[in-house]
Amino acid sequence: MIIVMEENATEEQIVRVVDRLVNLGFDIHRSTGSRYTLLGAVGSRITDPRDLELLEGVNKVVRVSAPYKLASRAFNPEGAKIKVGDVIIGGEQVVVMAGPGVVESREQMETIAGRLAKHGVRVLRSGAFRSSDDPYGFQGLGEEGLKLLREVADRHRMLTHSTIFDIAQLSLFGRYVDIIQVSERDMRNYALLKELAKMGKPVILRRGTSSTIEETLMAADFVMRGGDHQVIVCERGIRTFETYTRHTLDLSAIPVIKKLSSLPIIVDPSRAMGRRDKVPPMARAAVAAGADGLLIEVHHDPDHALADGAQSLTLEQFDKLTDQLRIIASAVERTL
Amino acid sequence: MIIVMEENATEEQIVRVVDRLVNLGFDIHRSTGSRYTLLGAVGSRITDPRDLELLEGVNKVVRVSAPYKLASRAFNPEGAKIKVGDVIIGGEQVVVMAGPGVVESREQMETIAGRLAKHGVRVLRSGAFRSSDDPYGFQGLGEEGLKLLREVADRHRMLTHSTIFDIAQLSLFGRYVDIIQVSERDMRNYALLKELAKMGKPVILRRGTSSTIEETLMAADFVMRGGDHQVIVCERGIRTFETYTRHTLDLSAIPVIKKLSSLPIIVDPSRAMGRRDKVPPMARAAVAAGADGLLIEVHHDPDHALADGAQSLTLEQFDKLTDQLRIIASAVERTL
Amino acid sequence: MIIVMEENATEEQIVRVVDRLVNLGFDIHRSTGSRYTLLGAVGSRITDPRDLELLEGVNKVVRVSAPYKLASRAFNPEGAKIKVGDVIIGGEQVVVMAGPGVVESREQMETIAGRLAKHGVRVLRSGAFRSSDDPYGFQGLGEEGLKLLREVADRHRMLTHSTIFDIAQLSLFGRYVDIIQVSERDMRNYALLKELAKMGKPVILRRGTSSTIEETLMAADFVMRGGDHQVIVCERGIRTFETYTRHTLDLSAIPVIKKLSSLPIIVDPSRAMGRRDKVPPMARAAVAAGADGLLIEVHHDPDHALADGAQSLTLEQFDKLTDQLRIIASAVERTL
Amino acid sequence: MIIVMEENATEEQIVRVVDRLVNLGFDIHRSTGSRYTLLGAVGSRITDPRDLELLEGVNKVVRVSAPYKLASRAFNPEGAKIKVGDVIIGGEQVVVMAGPGVVESREQMETIAGRLAKHGVRVLRSGAFRSSDDPYGFQGLGEEGLKLLREVADRHRMLTHSTIFDIAQLSLFGRYVDIIQVSERDMRNYALLKELAKMGKPVILRRGTSSTIEETLMAADFVMRGGDHQVIVCERGIRTFETYTRHTLDLSAIPVIKKLSSLPIIVDPSRAMGRRDKVPPMARAAVAAGADGLLIEVHHDPDHALADGAQSLTLEQFDKLTDQLRIIASAVERTL
Repeated sequence: MIIVMEENATEEQIVRVVDRLVNLGFDIHRSTGSRYTLLGAVGSRITDPRDLELLEGVNKVVRVSAPYKLASRAFNPEGAKIKVGDVIIGGEQVVVMAGPGVVESREQMETIAGRLAKHGVRVLRSGAFRSSDDPYGFQGLGEEGLKLLREVADRHRMLTHSTIFDIAQLSLFGRYVDIIQVSERDMRNYALLKELAKMGKPVILRRGTSSTIEETLMAADFVMRGGDHQVIVCERGIRTFETYTRHTLDLSAIPVIKKLSSLPIIVDPSRAMGRRDKVPPMARAAVAAGADGLLIEVHHDPDHALADGAQSLTLEQFDKLTDQLRIIASAVERTL
Repeated sequence: MIIVMEENATEEQIVRVVDRLVNLGFDIHRSTGSRYTLLGAVGSRITDPRDLELLEGVNKVVRVSAPYKLASRAFNPEGAKIKVGDVIIGGEQVVVMAGPGVVESREQMETIAGRLAKHGVRVLRSGAFRSSDDPYGFQGLGEEGLKLLREVADRHRMLTHSTIFDIAQLSLFGRYVDIIQVSERDMRNYALLKELAKMGKPVILRRGTSSTIEETLMAADFVMRGGDHQVIVCERGIRTFETYTRHTLDLSAIPVIKKLSSLPIIVDPSRAMGRRDKVPPMARAAVAAGADGLLIEVHHDPDHALADGAQSLTLEQFDKLTDQLRIIASAVERTL
Repeated sequence: MIIVMEENATEEQIVRVVDRLVNLGFDIHRSTGSRYTLLGAVGSRITDPRDLELLEGVNKVVRVSAPYKLASRAFNPEGAKIKVGDVIIGGEQVVVMAGPGVVESREQMETIAGRLAKHGVRVLRSGAFRSSDDPYGFQGLGEEGLKLLREVADRHRMLTHSTIFDIAQLSLFGRYVDIIQVSERDMRNYALLKELAKMGKPVILRRGTSSTIEETLMAADFVMRGGDHQVIVCERGIRTFETYTRHTLDLSAIPVIKKLSSLPIIVDPSRAMGRRDKVPPMARAAVAAGADGLLIEVHHDPDHALADGAQSLTLEQFDKLTDQLRIIASAVERTL
Repeated sequence: MIIVMEENATEEQIVRVVDRLVNLGFDIHRSTGSRYTLLGAVGSRITDPRDLELLEGVNKVVRVSAPYKLASRAFNPEGAKIKVGDVIIGGEQVVVMAGPGVVESREQMETIAGRLAKHGVRVLRSGAFRSSDDPYGFQGLGEEGLKLLREVADRHRMLTHSTIFDIAQLSLFGRYVDIIQVSERDMRNYALLKELAKMGKPVILRRGTSSTIEETLMAADFVMRGGDHQVIVCERGIRTFETYTRHTLDLSAIPVIKKLSSLPIIVDPSRAMGRRDKVPPMARAAVAAGADGLLIEVHHDPDHALADGAQSLTLEQFDKLTDQLRIIASAVERTL
């Protein structure tokens, strides 16, 4: 932390700030220039910079270190490669995770998974629980849904991906799910993150719709400090003044996170855009911008989907998109 | 719902939309003008407007009814008055709920509560659990904290207010807390809201930092449909591009919510501003704009507070603020 | 400026950054700590921090001085008091500037000004030119409008306030207008600001709807460097994700600007809210938060106003509001 | 426009709204349902919906027609193809417009243009005037700069692109510039747009940083109604709460504008990202999302550029980017 004193700060004020910092356990490096005094404070204690900013004579307080460590690029300069089965997230391959919004039936899952597998999709994503703003809608099949997801995925030699909403679901997810996703609403649900970290499974952390990139990496760091280094960040849109689209997909987060952090980053264009006609352009853009993976909602009959039909691609749309993504991946020296 | 067809929509397209709506259980009122056809759809089924917007020939879908009912002004034109003990929230009096960020000790609570009581504060607010972004900081005293809060409040004939973070804390809150607050992060935690609704205690629902006013009222409606009509909405700042302040306190939400809804609305300037020197102006502004209450963090020694010291008023600042608020309340025909 | 080097920056990298800074005319103060090296750069040359951030080994670049000088509180600790005729903006009195959105006719101006004068309003505001998004609507009376504004104001011993949209209007404004307002769209129209600064009249600079507080003060500084120190800042709402209100009035800008800057700050609730029923609460809140003045649109017959009728108060509403504002002003030790 | 009356609106209230609409010149189509009455209002007069919303008994007012006509997809279902010389914007080819931020010298322009021409770049972009927030920085070469731009472009058989900042510059731009760009700050500068429309040259309209997509299309419509149908929209980033990047590039605007409007849309990743290392990913993403063109700042020696060096690609970076873009364009069935 660097404390920049006001130009006209008195010696007494400076000493009071130094004392406060020393009491907080910091080593102080004082540097007096012709115009202002800087205090460099080194220490491990986390301190609210606002406490210092309120002291008299203080102009501003600047954090020097990033507020995350294990998630930083410096900690792992080569970048994390997360291996799940024989799939590597963060490697050369762009990993497409696809499937219907929710598990509805064995037939539905079979139809969709069969087609996806043919296109080389290795991760089957679907929901068994829901946390919808419409509490009267379909709430998911629960454990039965996870079981179906597992069975169908196994038959097609795919991995499973699903979203957890509650600590109470942890053991079910431990049993059936390979890649556990945390909803954007739970990005700072530390109770859930702490327990997840103990399971040691790959975790997808979705960026909150009003969370900065830095806050997202802090949440990832929290899981990593809990012992689970297999964290994947997911960009799924932020809230802005533009209301034509449900959220504004912030694809610039991809190169930014790649630079700040070692973690893989994937993108969910389905949920960000909310309408299937807008999904393929943003899926393509995400791969072109360097995403390590995609989450795509696909349904064989979106008009009759029990949930999220509007944002689900048809199988035909998914076919076409895959062909395009393959070419784009090659442009950035990756495979699909 | 009104479905506006494209100017050049064909009869076939119109019929297909009508069929879809009828299948969804809607009664259709068709109105064909010289330029475009309108379809009025009346029914109780909640439908994702995007499903209809994707149909060919549809220009736009307009929701007519508000997506909340019990929380609406129409449902309760006089406005809700929530009685807790002998305090009425939503009545003539502007209800100030004040206290330290977290319960630290009996002495601390006594010192602060004694002073607040002298100023006519009837609700003692404080935290016993924390859900901080700093998982290494002070985590609160837990049940011991709630007990202290209760004891000290009782001694000064005050009500208690505290924030719940987990369903597991419900029975503790049932025992010790008169007004239960739901954090902004949990505004759409439907599992928690459902259980809270069953307790039948007054609930303060904090608007999420990226939640619209409408979404906030939908969450309130959810609690009310669960059987608890004693819901109070709390504005505590939204996320905008301005970063000088931690959040942007949206005081215009006060007259808007007053018009749309019957629910009382209170404001938390402490958390929104994050620094004590900015709290009094916004507290005054909230009352001037018509708020039904305030949440104010106060500490007898903020420099040594275990949490949130920077945003806590000193007792002297609180005294002065109270005097100002009393005058402002009178300007809007209210009392403090 | 402080340049924070990466923890693992090499001596070679550090030297290259120092060389670059010296070439740019900075004096360098190097401070090597156990973990990282800081470079303090002092100089007057404005440098794009991004140029330095791109150099190898640089972690971050921190600006120490505010990017504005004359507008800063440090430059004028007592705060600016802008005297126009016998009205002082930034003094004890909260200055209400009121009038119809546009000048329509002598009768209209007389009716409104007469009533306002009775309430002690000393500044008559109205528009003679428009820069509307509706290019087919009423475009204003031009010079004739300014003349009417002047005549009617003179008869009631009031000052005139109007908004300039074009450099070509400068001489007209010089002749008829006492307080010249710059629209939010022109906040960074440096060509216009440069010419305005030469006139030496009080200038109201409206904060752009996507401008930060800092950028607003930079624009004020620009006018002041041009020789005109009579700058007043106006908060009129920023763009956020909340769309129920046209803009989100950022009242927290009041205490923030009061701390950072010596300039008076006024608030325009009419334009921010866009609907007259929401104007009084926000006008009251602005005064309670410490605003030095208000801009209020008032019309004797808003239903037939040629422009902005929806956001204009009726004369009766204005009467009532004035009474409330008087009380609120007293609560913050000011007069109306 | 559809006026939705409150459920409990009285016949008297309904009649009053109808009368008001008839007075405004609308034809009214009344439709009384079991729960509420709808009034469809058809007419050409532009009316502020807020005026109607304020009437008693009105629940909400819904605009049916888009507030733009000539810019709409319906007006030109095939999509506009804008021909400049032998370059077509909005056709099969993705048009890259590249060059240095500002014209500095003949040598600079030659070096850069020579290299760009080799890569098939057909439009040379550069600035001769500046409207910077740093009024002490380099202000551009003015007419001399435009002349150099023209000469060098001619020698390499390229078109010219530059940004206009002032009506006074119109005749210069008429003489030297093929594609005239309007800065985001001037997107609603109707005086400038009106004059530009008369020139009949291709105009690039940059979306304001706080302008919605709809507002951007309204501005385009304004130019088109002025007689110039050769309008190209440019996405260059919007202001959001995320401050790590200068602006948030809203690539989802590409498919949205493609659907709503017939106009070509291009993207400026240089200015949006502000740092050269973030430009290539977003340039690639823009093409993948369907952009019709790109604006790229390129400099042979960015470290010594007189302006915007930090966001300028080196020639080598541009070479590599071009190769990638070619592949990505092929994935979406386009050429570069």
